[in-house]
Amino acid sequence: MINVGIIGAGRIGQVHAKSILTGVPEARILAIADPYLSETAAAWAKQVGIEGIYRNYKQILQDPRIEAVLICSSTDTHAQISIEAIEAGKHVFCEKPIDQSLERIAAVEAALRASQRNLKYQVGFNRRFDHNYRALRAAVLAGKVGEVQFVRVSSRDPEAPPAGYVAGSGGIFMDMMIHDLDMLCYLSGHEIEELYAQGAVLIDPAIGEAGDVDSATVSARLSNGALALIDNSRKAVYGYDQRAEVFGSLGCAQSYNDTASTAVISTVEGVVSEKPLWFFLQRYMVSYQAEIRAFFDCIANDTEPEVGIESGRISIRLALACKKSMAEQRPVRLSEIAD
Amino acid sequence: MINVGIIGAGRIGQVHAKSILTGVPEARILAIADPYLSETAAAWAKQVGIEGIYRNYKQILQDPRIEAVLICSSTDTHAQISIEAIEAGKHVFCEKPIDQSLERIAAVEAALRASQRNLKYQVGFNRRFDHNYRALRAAVLAGKVGEVQFVRVSSRDPEAPPAGYVAGSGGIFMDMMIHDLDMLCYLSGHEIEELYAQGAVLIDPAIGEAGDVDSATVSARLSNGALALIDNSRKAVYGYDQRAEVFGSLGCAQSYNDTASTAVISTVEGVVSEKPLWFFLQRYMVSYQAEIRAFFDCIANDTEPEVGIESGRISIRLALACKKSMAEQRPVRLSEIAD
Amino acid sequence: MINVGIIGAGRIGQVHAKSILTGVPEARILAIADPYLSETAAAWAKQVGIEGIYRNYKQILQDPRIEAVLICSSTDTHAQISIEAIEAGKHVFCEKPIDQSLERIAAVEAALRASQRNLKYQVGFNRRFDHNYRALRAAVLAGKVGEVQFVRVSSRDPEAPPAGYVAGSGGIFMDMMIHDLDMLCYLSGHEIEELYAQGAVLIDPAIGEAGDVDSATVSARLSNGALALIDNSRKAVYGYDQRAEVFGSLGCAQSYNDTASTAVISTVEGVVSEKPLWFFLQRYMVSYQAEIRAFFDCIANDTEPEVGIESGRISIRLALACKKSMAEQRPVRLSEIAD
Amino acid sequence: MINVGIIGAGRIGQVHAKSILTGVPEARILAIADPYLSETAAAWAKQVGIEGIYRNYKQILQDPRIEAVLICSSTDTHAQISIEAIEAGKHVFCEKPIDQSLERIAAVEAALRASQRNLKYQVGFNRRFDHNYRALRAAVLAGKVGEVQFVRVSSRDPEAPPAGYVAGSGGIFMDMMIHDLDMLCYLSGHEIEELYAQGAVLIDPAIGEAGDVDSATVSARLSNGALALIDNSRKAVYGYDQRAEVFGSLGCAQSYNDTASTAVISTVEGVVSEKPLWFFLQRYMVSYQAEIRAFFDCIANDTEPEVGIESGRISIRLALACKKSMAEQRPVRLSEIAD
Repeated sequence: MINVGIIGAGRIGQVHAKSILTGVPEARILAIADPYLSETAAAWAKQVGIEGIYRNYKQILQDPRIEAVLICSSTDTHAQISIEAIEAGKHVFCEKPIDQSLERIAAVEAALRASQRNLKYQVGFNRRFDHNYRALRAAVLAGKVGEVQFVRVSSRDPEAPPAGYVAGSGGIFMDMMIHDLDMLCYLSGHEIEELYAQGAVLIDPAIGEAGDVDSATVSARLSNGALALIDNSRKAVYGYDQRAEVFGSLGCAQSYNDTASTAVISTVEGVVSEKPLWFFLQRYMVSYQAEIRAFFDCIANDTEPEVGIESGRISIRLALACKKSMAEQRPVRLSEIAD
Repeated sequence: MINVGIIGAGRIGQVHAKSILTGVPEARILAIADPYLSETAAAWAKQVGIEGIYRNYKQILQDPRIEAVLICSSTDTHAQISIEAIEAGKHVFCEKPIDQSLERIAAVEAALRASQRNLKYQVGFNRRFDHNYRALRAAVLAGKVGEVQFVRVSSRDPEAPPAGYVAGSGGIFMDMMIHDLDMLCYLSGHEIEELYAQGAVLIDPAIGEAGDVDSATVSARLSNGALALIDNSRKAVYGYDQRAEVFGSLGCAQSYNDTASTAVISTVEGVVSEKPLWFFLQRYMVSYQAEIRAFFDCIANDTEPEVGIESGRISIRLALACKKSMAEQRPVRLSEIAD
Repeated sequence: MINVGIIGAGRIGQVHAKSILTGVPEARILAIADPYLSETAAAWAKQVGIEGIYRNYKQILQDPRIEAVLICSSTDTHAQISIEAIEAGKHVFCEKPIDQSLERIAAVEAALRASQRNLKYQVGFNRRFDHNYRALRAAVLAGKVGEVQFVRVSSRDPEAPPAGYVAGSGGIFMDMMIHDLDMLCYLSGHEIEELYAQGAVLIDPAIGEAGDVDSATVSARLSNGALALIDNSRKAVYGYDQRAEVFGSLGCAQSYNDTASTAVISTVEGVVSEKPLWFFLQRYMVSYQAEIRAFFDCIANDTEPEVGIESGRISIRLALACKKSMAEQRPVRLSEIAD
Repeated sequence: MINVGIIGAGRIGQVHAKSILTGVPEARILAIADPYLSETAAAWAKQVGIEGIYRNYKQILQDPRIEAVLICSSTDTHAQISIEAIEAGKHVFCEKPIDQSLERIAAVEAALRASQRNLKYQVGFNRRFDHNYRALRAAVLAGKVGEVQFVRVSSRDPEAPPAGYVAGSGGIFMDMMIHDLDMLCYLSGHEIEELYAQGAVLIDPAIGEAGDVDSATVSARLSNGALALIDNSRKAVYGYDQRAEVFGSLGCAQSYNDTASTAVISTVEGVVSEKPLWFFLQRYMVSYQAEIRAFFDCIANDTEPEVGIESGRISIRLALACKKSMAEQRPVRLSEIAD
């Protein structure tokens, strides 16, 4: 039984709490901390048997019974809390991104190296634990598509975030496409070497005024020479559109959207099937539980997390390369972004 | 918080226990009883915090703290335990079928009527809580297919049971098609008035020697005049094939199989997608949790279960009509089977 | 080059004429005959270079240059014209059914046997030449589904015929389901031994008043013991619904509807794909050309037509068995219908 | 009745001849010319009733009965023959591309303007007449996807051409992607303003040695600000992969591959459906007939061809922009390519 503390009780913190309560019997949540903890959230935590309900995360770090923490606070606190947690001897599961700055990611890594204890550090790229993407990757690794020649990810949100959110998000590449950049690598088994990013404000002018774009594409070249494409939109009115394909010398593996049912209704209007599941909480719920389970497995079995600091760092370098490419209107090599 | 006892710790008893532990926080399993409880099962029950682990189900019935029981024992004990549980003042969730005899079902009903307490009695037709069938029924009830004119259910198991199982199962109509007969009614919103059943031994001669068939069809007429068809097979090598369609004056609603992923792989061999989920535990897991949750909702909110004794009785009458039809090689009206 | 005469210039006669003109360069239409030939049809025939345009089909039979005739006149004339054509030494392609009476079919057969010449006689079961059904049959013959255990055909028209048509059509079994009964045999490679037919008037009361039904099902048993089901409707508002499936010990082969395009449109309303092609002229156009080509191939290469008199006779016996079963409300064995 | 001459009797010339013979009764092929006309081709032409069979195309141009010519000769002769045909007063259907040089396209245009007669000039972008792409465009024009924000075309050949062919083809952008660039514009209803092209040799090193690439992507920006992506491969082992999607403010329209049948076979191996139709002759056969029919319609009704010289010119400018972008490794604006 692993004792856990959750830092940050917002939407994703609650998702992880529920995952553990309903599907990870080998872990027990001893405490949860959030400076803005609502009455409702506190009552819920009490009801499900979480004994420590704090405003200050340091109370979690100081509890010697707690072996592992989940960092679900706001992005700008991830690196600092990661370092403190490592120094307190805790295993860390940190929501993505670790930080938008490569320097601060390096500081987390340094803390991890400096630690005397064999601590696990996992970054929350939940899509790596999704059933569809895992099926694609398994097919690729099994050689079913042969040598990878082309990869594509289409990723579209069902509704655009408010411009206020966008301002602090790091922009579409850092906030949204970071998942898709990670998927290109995960699905193909290769790294991105060069990319060209385009962006446009086509959905909400307020997003443009906030200095961001709401539609974006990336054209990339992978380390094995393969080509790759990503398309992103902040608003697909029909729901969360999440598709991918890996093409190679022996074939092509594609994944389609998940739906709430397989029902198809034929009328004079047409043959109508269900829209994609609405958004990430619906679509990726199972993957959130799977990644948390994997984290505790790493602790229990002393294995390395599938998504460690290096994956977190590469995704930030790629997002920075996208921003640079869009700003300078030219292809950018990953090597231009200091490690 | 509703205190629950589970009677019968076999496969389905454990499914319900897990459903409650992981997804029904408003219920607490106080005890589990099984005369053949394995060491492993007992250890598991202890580990998940079930305090009472008994061989005799009467210990559960005698515990005044327990408000509701789940009857998951062998079919021949359902009616007797149902009656005792009702007499002990417990709400009852009983696995299907209540009994293969209409007399014993009547006895259960009599006990329920005799009870002074407002007890809930739900029968385990889990498919009524399945996302695909619910979507079909919702479309039908919403009038999307207009007046129902035709209903079809295809239901095929991935592997035939051992002939030994078949002998005590009541036969394919009682054991397997009972679900599909219930689905015809559930999906169409109408009752079956007449049916013609055919059976054949095409898969395993031992099933024939045990007096049963392994392949069957039913051709039926519903109370609104609509026609209906069912096909059953004990062995679809590609997995659990579970499809339905409702056709009417304004259109047609169909449901297809669920799969483990949406991955599609195109090679020189063809375009290959995933097989159906393997069997009922994979395919209907979510519906098991949903039906249990619905049961506790009925208790908490004092509403009538969606699937009560009457549904359980009709399904048995229909299965008996099928057996009679196959034996006498003629269509049989439901009214021929005494209520 | 084979010289052809077409008897009957209605819808199906024109379909065959166009098939030959546009896709069967090895045949030349010398003449067309129809007592009710419209001005438009005559003008069209002249324009496409058909030299003989007659009211009386006997003029075609008397033309010694004509080797083959296509009989596309009304059903009640098929047998008589077949016999005269055979006696005139012509190869015959006869639209289905040859006749609704087994005696008259026997007379055609007798004429064919009496003929000194090696004449070909093909019946117009065009669905045997359809790409989807051929793909199913090919899979079955190749052993991909193993031993056949179950066959199903769903066949629904997009709009009900006028009650006036129904009266002279021989009824739904003779007019519509005859194709599906043939498909059960064609797809499975086995004969129907016994069947139980149900009918209902659910669409148009006038059809009932005309003594027919507009919805029907058949539950059958094949010669190898396999079970089979057919469902028919005279009106599927979403278009011509034509699907089939063959299930066996090694798998299942299914065919779905053809559509005008593969376009799929996702909006807030749902994910909408195209409806089935509207009716038989759209859906089966390619098969009409294929059957005619096959007929000329048989003549050119002196091979037996894939669909000869025997297939025509069996389909009528099956339709008669359906009528008897519905009337007597009991399963009927094919052997009850005199050969 | 329009009298036609076909210049070039290779594969595509024969496709057009057959289209006319079997589906365009309002046109008559008077002559065919090809310096390398095979014995077989000549025999076939004679058999189908083409009276003039020449080695020199000038004989066609000199025939005053011929009103329209189809130019199906090698690409390097298109412009010269176009000019001569226009000067001879013939309507022209010219296979794509008109020429790889913008100067020579301008010369054709000048000839057309100089002509006193009201001649029609259509370029062979057959995909604009394909049922799937027309369905997508119709949906877009009908406003079903709202304002276009993103367009994607995936286009993959089933087998790479010999390196020898590649050398004279103008390269992948001029030879293959030219269709897809045209599709971006056709489907979206907007022009391409800027693009970034990437290429790679991943399939056949001989193609690289011939100075070309066998895999390519384009990332583009359209005149309305929308983003667009294309991916090309010379070899998809599973067949001709031709898909497109148009995404906008109100939804998304996608097209999928056509197949030879709708058959789906489920076995222990998986659920297998048909591969895409093998290559362009199978996949686009109907569109070839449709474009030829549209050409004759323009002549008959004196309307402008849907695909005129301007479309031909833009596609060449786009292909040249792709080549420049790949060579200079930077995004290129269409305005950089002289009109």
